[in-house]
Amino acid sequence: MTDALAPCARIGILGGGQLGRMLALSAARLGLDVVIFDPEPDCPASRVAVETITAAYDDLDAVAKFAASVDAVTYEFENVPAATAAAAAEHAPLRPGALALDVAQDRLTEKTFLNEHGARTVAFRAVDTLEGLQAAISELGLPAILKTRRFGYDGKGQAVIREMAEAEAAFAAMNGQPAILEAFADFTMELSIIAARGLDGEVAAYPLSKNRHSGGILRESFAPAEISEDLSNRAFAMAASVLKALDYVGVMGMELFALKDGTLLVNEIAPRVHNTGHWTQDACHVCQFEQHIRAVAGWPLGDTAPHSSAQMINLIGHDADGWESWLRSRKAVLHLYGKRETRAGRKMGHVNVLGPL
Amino acid sequence: MTDALAPCARIGILGGGQLGRMLALSAARLGLDVVIFDPEPDCPASRVAVETITAAYDDLDAVAKFAASVDAVTYEFENVPAATAAAAAEHAPLRPGALALDVAQDRLTEKTFLNEHGARTVAFRAVDTLEGLQAAISELGLPAILKTRRFGYDGKGQAVIREMAEAEAAFAAMNGQPAILEAFADFTMELSIIAARGLDGEVAAYPLSKNRHSGGILRESFAPAEISEDLSNRAFAMAASVLKALDYVGVMGMELFALKDGTLLVNEIAPRVHNTGHWTQDACHVCQFEQHIRAVAGWPLGDTAPHSSAQMINLIGHDADGWESWLRSRKAVLHLYGKRETRAGRKMGHVNVLGPL
Repeated sequence: MTDALAPCARIGILGGGQLGRMLALSAARLGLDVVIFDPEPDCPASRVAVETITAAYDDLDAVAKFAASVDAVTYEFENVPAATAAAAAEHAPLRPGALALDVAQDRLTEKTFLNEHGARTVAFRAVDTLEGLQAAISELGLPAILKTRRFGYDGKGQAVIREMAEAEAAFAAMNGQPAILEAFADFTMELSIIAARGLDGEVAAYPLSKNRHSGGILRESFAPAEISEDLSNRAFAMAASVLKALDYVGVMGMELFALKDGTLLVNEIAPRVHNTGHWTQDACHVCQFEQHIRAVAGWPLGDTAPHSSAQMINLIGHDADGWESWLRSRKAVLHLYGKRETRAGRKMGHVNVLGPL
Repeated sequence: MTDALAPCARIGILGGGQLGRMLALSAARLGLDVVIFDPEPDCPASRVAVETITAAYDDLDAVAKFAASVDAVTYEFENVPAATAAAAAEHAPLRPGALALDVAQDRLTEKTFLNEHGARTVAFRAVDTLEGLQAAISELGLPAILKTRRFGYDGKGQAVIREMAEAEAAFAAMNGQPAILEAFADFTMELSIIAARGLDGEVAAYPLSKNRHSGGILRESFAPAEISEDLSNRAFAMAASVLKALDYVGVMGMELFALKDGTLLVNEIAPRVHNTGHWTQDACHVCQFEQHIRAVAGWPLGDTAPHSSAQMINLIGHDADGWESWLRSRKAVLHLYGKRETRAGRKMGHVNVLGPL
C-alpha cells in the first residue's frame, strides 16, 4: 500500500476543538500519535494529544515546523487560511487537499462547483452591490437568504429577506463583504450524508441522518433517516461525484434539503468530520472519526453499517448541566468535550441515545 | 451526589501501559482530564494524557505530588507497592482502595479472602520449605502447581508438579520466595466476569466471557459465553460478594474455572480493568474502561448489556504485523496500543470481531 502511514506514525491536526479531540481519540485507538496546532493553549484536543503547538494560524513558520514534525496533516475546520494550508502541504501530505478548502470556504465557489458536478443546489446569485441584490431578488423571488460568501457558520452572517423593502438593511448587515443571494428552499426534511474517500479512491458512506436545526445551530440528528432507497442512492451518488471531483481524501459532511416533490438539494459541504455524523460513534463499529483517520493515514476505509439506530442530541450551553441524568439513562451514551467554561450557544457535548435498527 | 467529581476534573492513573491508555481515552470521552504516573517516559498512556509524571513508584515525594494534583487516583496494575498506594491515598481518594491491592497481591491472602467471602477456589497450602511442599503435595495430590505468592502474571513464577520427584526442582525455581501450592483444577472452561461497584455500592457486571490462554497468556475471549443462567448467576453472586467485602470502587476482573460437575472456582481476581473485558469496547455501549472511570469519578455505573457478540483476539508480538488485513475485515475493530517496539510475548493490540447476539 503506497503512501500508507505505519502504526505509531504522527498525524497533525489543525484545530484543537471538540472535532480535533474526537479525531485524536480515534487516532489513539489505532496506535497513532497526534500533534495539535491551535492558537488557544489548553484547547480540548490538546489534552489528549502527544504534543500541541500553540500559535496563530498565520504564523507560517510555526505551521511549517508543525507539518515537518508529522507524517500527514488534516484539519477540523473548513476556514483554514489558504496560506496556512499551503505552508503545511509543503512539508507533509495535506488530507483533504487545498481544493476542498478552496471550494468549501466560499459559498459562491461551492455552489458553482456542486452544480458542475451533479449536485444540485438552490438557485443563487453573486451580490456585490445593493442594485445587484435588488436585481437578484427580482430573478430568484422572495423569500430569499442573503449570506456572506465566506466565514459563515451556525447561522452567522445570514439575513432572511421576505420583502424587497428589507433588501437595504440586509445588504448593510453584510458590512461590505462579498455576498450571495440564495433562493429559499421549501424543504420538508433536512438530511445529511457523511461520506469518505480513501487514498485509493474507494468511497464509503454512512446511512443518512435526519437533522433538526434551531437558531442556526444543529440540535439533534436521527439515523438512519427513514427515507426511500432511491433518495438514499441519489445522495450517495452526489457525494461520490463531489468527492471524486475534489480528489478528496477523508470524511466529508454534505447537508441536504429534501423537497416535497422528492428533489434533493445540497445545502453545503464541510470538508471535515461533521456534527451530524456524531451518531456513528456509538451506532457503528467504525465511526466517522476513525474513518477520517483511516483515510488520512492512507489506510483502508471501514465498515459503515450501523448496529443500532441513534438519536444524537447536542448539549449546547447549559444543556450540559444535565450530564448526570444522561449518565443514568440506560440507552444514552454521553460525550463531554472538556470545555472549562459553559457559554450560551457553545457546544459542550452530545448524547447518543441508542435503539434497535 | 456526594464525593462525585465534576466534569473537567482530573483523574490520576498509576501505570501508563495499554490499560492506562484505554482508561484515559474513556475518561476523555467523558470530559475528564487524566494525569499518568509511570517510570517510563513515552509510555502508551502518556501520549493521550494531559500530563505525565515520570518517576519510580517508590519515589514517594513524586507520588505525593502526583496525587495532590488530581481529584482521584486509580491504577492499571495490581502490583502497586503498598507504600505507593498509601502515599497517594493521603492526598486523593484511592479507588479501588488499599485493601483490594493487599488481597490481590498475594495468592495466599487472595485465596483465603475469597474462600471467606463465598468465592470457592482450588485447595491450596502455603509453602515455605521443601519439606512443607512435600507435605502439601501429599495432602493435595498431584498434579499440582507451585506458584510464588507475589508478583506472578502471564504464567511467570509458576511450576507444574506431576511427580513427587519434581518437587525439589520446583521449589528451587521459587528462588526462596514465599510460595503456594495449588491443587490442579480439572476445568472444562475458563471463564471470567468483569464486575464493577460504584461509590454508592451499586454493583453491575457484564455477561461472562469464555477465555483461551496459551503459554500463560490470554489469546482470545468470546462473549457472551454460552453458559447456563444458573452458572452466570453464581458468578455474579461471587463477584458481588467479593466487591462488597473489599468495599471496592471500580472495575474488577475475576477469572473463573468451570468444572465438569458445574462447580465454579475463582482462579484469581485483578483489581483493575482486565484483558478479558476488552470485548466490551465494541460490543457494549458503556465499556469496562468507561465503567471504571465512572466508578472512580463517583458517577453512576453504566448499562452492561451488549448490543453484539464479540470474539476478542489479542495481538501478541508479531501478530500485530497483520494490522492491515484486520483493517480490511468488515466485522473486526482494531485496537493498537502505540508501542514502538514489537517484542515476542508483548501485547501490541487486540481485535474485536463482532457478530449478532
